[in-house]
Amino acid sequence: MTEHSLWCFSRALHRAINERQPDDLAALIDDNVEWAVYGPIDMFPFLGARRGRAAVLDVCKQIADNIRVHRFERETVMLGVDSGASMMRYSLTALDSNRPISLRLAQFAQFKAGLLTSMRVVVDTFDLVEQTLGRPIHLPKIA
Amino acid sequence: MTEHSLWCFSRALHRAINERQPDDLAALIDDNVEWAVYGPIDMFPFLGARRGRAAVLDVCKQIADNIRVHRFERETVMLGVDSGASMMRYSLTALDSNRPISLRLAQFAQFKAGLLTSMRVVVDTFDLVEQTLGRPIHLPKIA
Repeated sequence: MTEHSLWCFSRALHRAINERQPDDLAALIDDNVEWAVYGPIDMFPFLGARRGRAAVLDVCKQIADNIRVHRFERETVMLGVDSGASMMRYSLTALDSNRPISLRLAQFAQFKAGLLTSMRVVVDTFDLVEQTLGRPIHLPKIA
Repeated sequence: MTEHSLWCFSRALHRAINERQPDDLAALIDDNVEWAVYGPIDMFPFLGARRGRAAVLDVCKQIADNIRVHRFERETVMLGVDSGASMMRYSLTALDSNRPISLRLAQFAQFKAGLLTSMRVVVDTFDLVEQTLGRPIHLPKIA
């Protein structure tokens, strides 16, 4: 039984980020990949949408320049033949501030012949912003 | 072919929110359901974790008191036998301010014998907070 594309991709992504070895990742990305990590791009320029392998490899390099992954846990996983979705909890360090960040996100990946063709990620971005700032943002209670 | 539990649940949830008719929803929730919508509970007390049918029905009533759903689009869907995950884009109105809110979220649902046993939702919360406030929060650029 062949390993699911999501596991190969995940391993290559973490190697690209933590070890700055993007070759495995490059070999697993379709030429015309669509990529979107939704979030405030003014604060985090490595969030947002990208199109094509070169742009995705470039944004993964930017991510590697900014964070280090310590641990991740898949809280929920769903696998299809050529797709995978997971809800994940990451323990990261922001490299500029050396601040620990605990992040929850959901990712939806699609593959074709083992290559990533689409990646969409929703992040609990308010939590990310507060942890990155290192202080709470005062919010009114609305309900 | 029976309709997937996710579609029944989704219809009942929207009926509970928009029409304040929670009976269909109540009939589709397991006694010991686990429920979590991650986000800033100080601002939105109807986010956060709940356990059990009564608590989930109560929080859905609180959601109904605060928002109205205009449209939703499933951008990605994955279905398993007793599970479903989707990335969704909602068009809402915040009822207190009459403000339109466009929201992206990812939901992971698990069912047992047609009843919801687990729901976990990741929301692009920073976007939600800014739209609810009706103004941008100034952020430093970190990268």
